[in-house]
Amino acid sequence: MRTEHDLRHHGDAEVRDDGLALVDLAVNVRADTPPAWLRERIAGSLGSLAAYPDGRAARAAVAARHGLPVERVLLTAGAAEAFVLLARALKVRRPVVVHPQFTEPEAALRDAGHTVDRVLLREEDGFRLDPAAVPEDADLVVVGNPTNPTSVLHPAAAVARLARPGRTLVVDEAFMDAVPGEREALAGRTDVPGLVVLRSLTKTWGLAGLRIGYVLAAPETIAELERAQPLWPVSTPALAAAEACMGPQALAEAAHAAHRIAADRAHLITGLGEFTSAGLRVTQPAEGPFVLIRLPQAAAVRGHLRDLGFAVRRGDTFPGLDEEWLRLAVRDRTTVNTFLQALDQALTLTSPVR
Amino acid sequence: MRTEHDLRHHGDAEVRDDGLALVDLAVNVRADTPPAWLRERIAGSLGSLAAYPDGRAARAAVAARHGLPVERVLLTAGAAEAFVLLARALKVRRPVVVHPQFTEPEAALRDAGHTVDRVLLREEDGFRLDPAAVPEDADLVVVGNPTNPTSVLHPAAAVARLARPGRTLVVDEAFMDAVPGEREALAGRTDVPGLVVLRSLTKTWGLAGLRIGYVLAAPETIAELERAQPLWPVSTPALAAAEACMGPQALAEAAHAAHRIAADRAHLITGLGEFTSAGLRVTQPAEGPFVLIRLPQAAAVRGHLRDLGFAVRRGDTFPGLDEEWLRLAVRDRTTVNTFLQALDQALTLTSPVR
Repeated sequence: MRTEHDLRHHGDAEVRDDGLALVDLAVNVRADTPPAWLRERIAGSLGSLAAYPDGRAARAAVAARHGLPVERVLLTAGAAEAFVLLARALKVRRPVVVHPQFTEPEAALRDAGHTVDRVLLREEDGFRLDPAAVPEDADLVVVGNPTNPTSVLHPAAAVARLARPGRTLVVDEAFMDAVPGEREALAGRTDVPGLVVLRSLTKTWGLAGLRIGYVLAAPETIAELERAQPLWPVSTPALAAAEACMGPQALAEAAHAAHRIAADRAHLITGLGEFTSAGLRVTQPAEGPFVLIRLPQAAAVRGHLRDLGFAVRRGDTFPGLDEEWLRLAVRDRTTVNTFLQALDQALTLTSPVR
Repeated sequence: MRTEHDLRHHGDAEVRDDGLALVDLAVNVRADTPPAWLRERIAGSLGSLAAYPDGRAARAAVAARHGLPVERVLLTAGAAEAFVLLARALKVRRPVVVHPQFTEPEAALRDAGHTVDRVLLREEDGFRLDPAAVPEDADLVVVGNPTNPTSVLHPAAAVARLARPGRTLVVDEAFMDAVPGEREALAGRTDVPGLVVLRSLTKTWGLAGLRIGYVLAAPETIAELERAQPLWPVSTPALAAAEACMGPQALAEAAHAAHRIAADRAHLITGLGEFTSAGLRVTQPAEGPFVLIRLPQAAAVRGHLRDLGFAVRRGDTFPGLDEEWLRLAVRDRTTVNTFLQALDQALTLTSPVR
């Protein structure tokens, strides 16, 4: 049976219902963000709101950070805008999305009138990328790396092997800055034909509310996307944030955060190991700031967790997954410990006899 | 000879060249904005940037302000995003833009692949709307009211007469809140078939850098436009601003500002009357927060004004106008007085023997 997936369901809906104050393991935004220094930089930009945004400095900063000329950079109102631009501006006949992954690229392609084919990576393969599964005639391929929600980090070489003459290869690297050393990143590469890399500042920097991200691609592609953008697409506060996040201190802070996330994730995964007897499995190796778990009666467990004050992300809205899957954002050890206690209770409430 | 117009030229480019500190009469944003109370409301929103934007409260506030249900309201990242959505989401065969007016609607339509027909209002008619000039089979008509750059305010009834079954009538009311009493507004009307009203918070509130505006239309049209929008199209600070600007105190402040602008505009027009002998003519009656003037050698005058520290908006990028036209933003009496002195000098430098 083909499950119908609500491609427009996102984690933010899971934490804002009913005005409950839930501990948020549903949204993949780093906790305690944005940092104070970044909030101050953003607040400092509010003095010039009367002027139209001027994106030149931020664009130059992004280009410098990736060692690219500015012609290869486009600032966007979040990665979400980038997906809409790709879907609407590029001439595409056969788009293929590699799932399970963030659903917005497919939703944007469908809304733009495209028929979208799916490549479903499989649990038994560890959700690893199989380049041979992508149809040869696909002229747009979208893949996430590391992938939301599986937390799988594909080798850069495997992703790059998807490139073909006449094909646009979109790599969503929204979570790559949470991977220590950004190993397997394709951002900054100019030797992969048709490569389009998307980056976000939302997750690491806690700027989901500000709408800022960017696209790295060949100058012709950037120009095409830019023509489909509204004038002044990115706000002045978002531009200030982007510029601030490209500086050496910010990059060092992000690198430090990536290592801490890795340690916190290891702690979470070890804790989840206690529930193997309850049928809980963690998709591994996990390399993103979240983990994907499978467990029986996940929906009921999620409901009990909610009653216990914890929001986790349902997995069944991701193509390739079903109601047995949940996604958990990596949090600090204390939060993880209280969560694991709640999970224990939730599992007991779900299957009293285990 | 048909003049080619740079539809993508905007006033902001005229004040930011060379790092000169020019007195800005080029950009139609109210001076001394945003007010401190509004900046504080925006700053207050920065504490919740880590969460994805939730537009519900702002949308409800806009709906309440216009006495409409929320289904008739769409928040956008400035009017510029609205033009792109209209150009890309609606099924349109024959779009017509009434010129001279803000060029972004036509640019967005062309970028979306449409062939755009122009109706050119004429100086000898006072740039007044002639409904008969619009082709019967136009299924999208775009008109500004009050019109940028002519400052002409068309009667609401004349604009509404452009409505037809099967036609989308887009009325750009970006400057309507600068007209005392908002007389001739169509915002809030539900009895005009196919009506789409665009509103901006940029001009009156000095939020050009924040990207916030909205569309009022029938629920089906709103739904169509919304489907073409990226997720989370409007940032949290912009939503906070929109909500704040819909309150009764804000509306009272805007009404007060509209009256002050009218007085300042009268002062400017009186002052410009001194230059009739130099061949300067003001398009009247002017009802927006700017005036359109015609004078010989306008480009040279503009250059001299620039050297004297004043930026004015060239008119020749607007279809229907040529290099004899300039647009002047209305400023306070003191600024206007110093500007008029500079204009006198600029005219003397241009035609020493006058």
